Amino acid sequence: MVIQQNEMEVAALSDKYASGAAWMNGEVIPIGEASIPVNDWGLIHSDITYDVVPVWNGGFFRIQDYLDRFFESMKALRLDPKMTRGKIQEVLTEMVSISGFRNSYVSMVCSRGLPRVSGSRDPRDCANYFYSWCVPYIHVIKPDIEVIGASALIAESVKRIPDNSINPIVKNYHWGDFTVGLFEAKDSSYETVILTDQDGNITEGPGFNIFAIRNGTLITPKSGVLSGISRKTVLEIAEGLGIRTEIRNIKKTELLRTDEVFISTSGGGVIPIAKVNEQIFSDGQCGAVTLEIRKTYWTWMNSPAYRTEIFYKN
Amino acid sequence: MVIQQNEMEVAALSDKYASGAAWMNGEVIPIGEASIPVNDWGLIHSDITYDVVPVWNGGFFRIQDYLDRFFESMKALRLDPKMTRGKIQEVLTEMVSISGFRNSYVSMVCSRGLPRVSGSRDPRDCANYFYSWCVPYIHVIKPDIEVIGASALIAESVKRIPDNSINPIVKNYHWGDFTVGLFEAKDSSYETVILTDQDGNITEGPGFNIFAIRNGTLITPKSGVLSGISRKTVLEIAEGLGIRTEIRNIKKTELLRTDEVFISTSGGGVIPIAKVNEQIFSDGQCGAVTLEIRKTYWTWMNSPAYRTEIFYKN
Repeated sequence: MVIQQNEMEVAALSDKYASGAAWMNGEVIPIGEASIPVNDWGLIHSDITYDVVPVWNGGFFRIQDYLDRFFESMKALRLDPKMTRGKIQEVLTEMVSISGFRNSYVSMVCSRGLPRVSGSRDPRDCANYFYSWCVPYIHVIKPDIEVIGASALIAESVKRIPDNSINPIVKNYHWGDFTVGLFEAKDSSYETVILTDQDGNITEGPGFNIFAIRNGTLITPKSGVLSGISRKTVLEIAEGLGIRTEIRNIKKTELLRTDEVFISTSGGGVIPIAKVNEQIFSDGQCGAVTLEIRKTYWTWMNSPAYRTEIFYKN
Repeated sequence: MVIQQNEMEVAALSDKYASGAAWMNGEVIPIGEASIPVNDWGLIHSDITYDVVPVWNGGFFRIQDYLDRFFESMKALRLDPKMTRGKIQEVLTEMVSISGFRNSYVSMVCSRGLPRVSGSRDPRDCANYFYSWCVPYIHVIKPDIEVIGASALIAESVKRIPDNSINPIVKNYHWGDFTVGLFEAKDSSYETVILTDQDGNITEGPGFNIFAIRNGTLITPKSGVLSGISRKTVLEIAEGLGIRTEIRNIKKTELLRTDEVFISTSGGGVIPIAKVNEQIFSDGQCGAVTLEIRKTYWTWMNSPAYRTEIFYKN
């Protein structure tokens, strides 16, 4: 199996970038020095978009897909950092190369910034601001639990923000609903949380999409969710494996009656969920179909077809 | 009238703080140097709360009410910066005093911060972080328009985030819905935007509560809104003036049929809205009832009963 995390993780060669690196205003700096103004609208109005491309074994995974989505998000929010796609890819590559990280969570961000006109309350007056940062690969679920299967609670205390308030396809930092749900889950000793929408349909969790296997068919929610690149990868893998897929609404009661549940995320790939609420799936282990998709996912992560290798200076 | 903005605004005595000041980690610094880490959860999860107390003519207005609300917000989000209420008031006072601002927008903020445990995805592991900043008094509506009446568009493209996703009583930076609405309004040359909820009820706008006068009765929305201190002030003023008040749902169609509309905000007080969508109110001027409430509001802003004077070092 290719998921020998400890073997593959290579520490940053320089102490300077051990915790992470950032690209800001044309320079690569240690992450501890990377900050944004306390009155930037990206912070005070959460008027900001981002994307995260994983680096694995020294190469970006599907970076063109991530850049596509990042540019679509910026367009939807009418953000324009005056940087070309080629320049942004160059910046990400340079930053990761200098950091030395072979496995990394690489974030690209565009914020509304600050108004060019003093006192303006008009978002059209702001100078939009691009920056980027990378840290050692982030696991949405701890690596030891990733293999055996995590537990998730379907939140009762909060509903996912609806699509007509915040468009979930535009990757955003509006995580207040997830945070309330995470507290509910963590207080009951679940690893993570799943949110439902106003109509009781399963949506997504903090940083991941959700899948279920029922009678051999792969099901994933249609609305209230990010169009995850890992989700897209899972759907393509399923197609290749001849697994029937359905993208549609799933009620909580149906999810609890399925055979296998897993999540997809750039921060860990395909991760089995062995328990949802009180319900145990696949005898509390990774289900057979999930395992097959998971294996293929890691094969793809290491496949030249999906990778863009990074030339490291260190 | 007490709203002679230009006469009352006194520039910061020192160039150093002309744009603003901040209090961070025990020190008062120029606002241009005040920033938070790019990976602070206050930014990347908008896991943060804030409050804004106005300083007018060298004194805080109703600072105890603002501190009450700030502590309630922190409690609701399970944020604890390990600072007493007295200490926070002391910090705000010291910062404004050093800034020299006699009229100021004074922001107090508590962010989730960064995890104490590397790689943790659990909000309970974070070191919560308090900071504060102040800038010259912010006008939600430009001062020249504040007097004659602003225009507002009821957004069609977006709905206010529901209370069961993000609790609006907890003052928050989840402004993505307002931002979409603001673009819609500004593109059609309206000064600001009003959002409706999923059921078509009027809620609030970016930084203000909404009121209407109908047949002499003051009406303001019940749900989907912040419990504004300025809103509370308006309700108390109305009571003092013998104006009947109703806190209840208002449909868009009803709002457009009322006699006067105004907004309340710490950033400008009571501001007439002379036009909503295509509908003109009070012949495009400040209505008579609004004007009476507005006058009283500014009397209160200057009244010792509601003020806490600041001792300025400059």
